[in-house]
Amino acid sequence: MPAKEDFGIRPGEVTVDLPAQPDAGIYFIGRIHTPWKKRADCPKNARGSDSVCTVELDARFVPGLKDVETCSHLVLLYWMDKSPRNLVVQNPGHHGTQFGTFALRSPARPNPIAMSVVKLLGIKGGKLSVVGLDCLDGTPLLDIKPYFPSTDSVPQAVVGWRNKD
Amino acid sequence: MPAKEDFGIRPGEVTVDLPAQPDAGIYFIGRIHTPWKKRADCPKNARGSDSVCTVELDARFVPGLKDVETCSHLVLLYWMDKSPRNLVVQNPGHHGTQFGTFALRSPARPNPIAMSVVKLLGIKGGKLSVVGLDCLDGTPLLDIKPYFPSTDSVPQAVVGWRNKD
Repeated sequence: MPAKEDFGIRPGEVTVDLPAQPDAGIYFIGRIHTPWKKRADCPKNARGSDSVCTVELDARFVPGLKDVETCSHLVLLYWMDKSPRNLVVQNPGHHGTQFGTFALRSPARPNPIAMSVVKLLGIKGGKLSVVGLDCLDGTPLLDIKPYFPSTDSVPQAVVGWRNKD
Repeated sequence: MPAKEDFGIRPGEVTVDLPAQPDAGIYFIGRIHTPWKKRADCPKNARGSDSVCTVELDARFVPGLKDVETCSHLVLLYWMDKSPRNLVVQNPGHHGTQFGTFALRSPARPNPIAMSVVKLLGIKGGKLSVVGLDCLDGTPLLDIKPYFPSTDSVPQAVVGWRNKD
């Protein structure tokens, strides 16, 4: 699979042949609306933006939002459909060194499923207002989950490679 | 799509017709090995178990593990392939009331992608030893991500419906 627009392979990057066929199919259950129309406009880190974004769920799935309004924070899964899937070692550029794909949150990965923890501001019909996203406008939505601090919050977690540079 | 084994529709549950075709394909990039062979054996909550589980990555993706060993915690995404996908309102049973699918972490959801935060104990070749899973042995792996407390940890998050019962 060729790397797509904006994602030319950089020096030191490693690609692999992907399996010939997918193993399962996913549905786009809605779309995420953000202020960002190009990759260059997206915030580098979701905590770097307090922009309110809108998650629009397809009508058939709206009954599934029952009780979601009681959640202060949600996990959103979405599909980074503009990313190459064959990069296993990447050079994110601003670090000047290579990293394994699974040590990064880069959208380029075998299954380009992004995960973001967002703050829920409110729900009207099938539209959720949230803060904490950094993706392109129109990004396909895959899932909405309640955020449970008992299992999802690990304040002491460490990403050691951050001390490399 | 009919509900699968173990997942009979219960009173008060609501199903929808799913789209005729999937919108994108995913690859199973490895398998998760756990001590649990049947749903009834799985811990109800991943924090309820300190069992060490093994994540086995397919050989082609192993170079993507570079630098992962510097992470204390990881986000794992995996495919709950035994779950029905057409339930939008569910009755999880132990609560005696109905909940919207997106207010639950139930494996039954339009895209049955589970997300777990795990503690990384070590990596040998393509095998990661982790604590914090509650899934069936053999569950297909979709992704491994570093856990960043700056964006992923929200200790004060609230799931309000937990106070219902």
